[in-house]
Amino acid sequence: MDIDYRKDAPIGVFDSGVGGLTVVREIMQNLPNENLVYFGDTARVPYGSKSVDTIIRFSKQIVRFLQTKNVKAIVIACNTVSALALDILRKETEIPIIGVVKPGAKVAAEVTKNKKVGIIGTEATVKSGVYTKFIQQYHSDIEVLAKACPLFVPLVEEGFVDNRITSEAIDYYLHEMKQSEIDTLILGCTHYPLLYNRVKSYMGEHICLVNPAHETALELKQLLQEKNLENIQKKEGKIPTYDFYSSDAPVRFKAFANSVLPYSVDWIEHINIEEF
Amino acid sequence: MDIDYRKDAPIGVFDSGVGGLTVVREIMQNLPNENLVYFGDTARVPYGSKSVDTIIRFSKQIVRFLQTKNVKAIVIACNTVSALALDILRKETEIPIIGVVKPGAKVAAEVTKNKKVGIIGTEATVKSGVYTKFIQQYHSDIEVLAKACPLFVPLVEEGFVDNRITSEAIDYYLHEMKQSEIDTLILGCTHYPLLYNRVKSYMGEHICLVNPAHETALELKQLLQEKNLENIQKKEGKIPTYDFYSSDAPVRFKAFANSVLPYSVDWIEHINIEEF
Repeated sequence: MDIDYRKDAPIGVFDSGVGGLTVVREIMQNLPNENLVYFGDTARVPYGSKSVDTIIRFSKQIVRFLQTKNVKAIVIACNTVSALALDILRKETEIPIIGVVKPGAKVAAEVTKNKKVGIIGTEATVKSGVYTKFIQQYHSDIEVLAKACPLFVPLVEEGFVDNRITSEAIDYYLHEMKQSEIDTLILGCTHYPLLYNRVKSYMGEHICLVNPAHETALELKQLLQEKNLENIQKKEGKIPTYDFYSSDAPVRFKAFANSVLPYSVDWIEHINIEEF
Repeated sequence: MDIDYRKDAPIGVFDSGVGGLTVVREIMQNLPNENLVYFGDTARVPYGSKSVDTIIRFSKQIVRFLQTKNVKAIVIACNTVSALALDILRKETEIPIIGVVKPGAKVAAEVTKNKKVGIIGTEATVKSGVYTKFIQQYHSDIEVLAKACPLFVPLVEEGFVDNRITSEAIDYYLHEMKQSEIDTLILGCTHYPLLYNRVKSYMGEHICLVNPAHETALELKQLLQEKNLENIQKKEGKIPTYDFYSSDAPVRFKAFANSVLPYSVDWIEHINIEEF
């Protein structure tokens, strides 16, 4: 009985804000029986331009909150936190935790043909050098070109996708990447998949864009199988429960969630995350 | 003796981040004998796209922190907090508190000739309607045109002033304002004075730009005089003390402060503001 209960337990997913919902979307599609608990730290977003100590402190509070929801696994749906805090968070809890960086690095190392890979992300992610480290663990001779694009998060948060400001920002941040010889580009921030078409059309069809969200969902599936925690027993007519929590008021969260997810988000609960 | 001690006490100034340093600059210039304590909530910046409840909760923590520094007055050097939380914060403490909105509204109402005033600020400030309310308290027949410019804060935080992305953003947000008949435009966010020249050259020389920071420093002076709290006794060779605190690591804060202030900021102390 005990083991069945654990299989039925939700997966905890968190991000600095709403960007991690792109990972939730992939989990919903690839693990359709799993119950989910999502936390977005919308009161303190963004993390990417903040210090390592602050990012670690905030993430520990979130892991403590997710533990109160009896999650069976945790997905850090934020590149910045995955890059800077994954090892530290693993020491805080016995619940298995995965991040988005390693899965993204793995797929990029597999798909590049000329062994030249680009990675774009927040200032904190790029500065950490973690993507380069993981990519070169797969193939030490892969050249990695990294670029921080700090304005992409506020642009996506404002819903500016097909917009002249976004065009200028894409050209500003990516023109060197475009002139380089990379054949693969990692969208190393969970907000960036929302700019997928814009980046693709700027960089050209021959560049393979890697969205770590998809690969992370597959890694999560493998992890659950290994630990015998996958919720395979689909009960007739039973749909999984998806619970959403945020640290700021839910208005903007709800609008964003409903534009990203194949699921209607009606209720988001406000959490005072500082108390955890 | 007691009253002398109070006169010598510092003035507390706070903002969601570093933008409030533009108000500090004006206070340093207009009240050169006053000691200052500045707090920037850099771990949770920006406030302008967050909810009223969150902004009030964060501001109350900061006021509690400033009280531990025995300040004799508090300046809310943030338009968003001034617009949404001033009245509530006044109920929390006996220390006199002023914001930046009323001084900015007053000067705009005085300088407009055709009684058409524009105001730009964060989403929260514009949504509050507080600028319009105050301006119309001075002259009820002044027409007010308000526009939220949410990307201006991240642009300034990234140091993007003379940049194509900023040009596009200015045109995107201000083209309607430019076509309107306003003769006065309030820079209703403490980050915006850093875009002063760009906005001035876009809007045209005939438009009077109002920077509430300057007017706020003058209102602070008047308040201190009324309460007999002004630090007029300049002791020979004694320079005032300026203490800086932030909730995130000080690296970015320091660089920004030294680009804004007529004073070399060498030390910024990190504060865990959530504990207040």
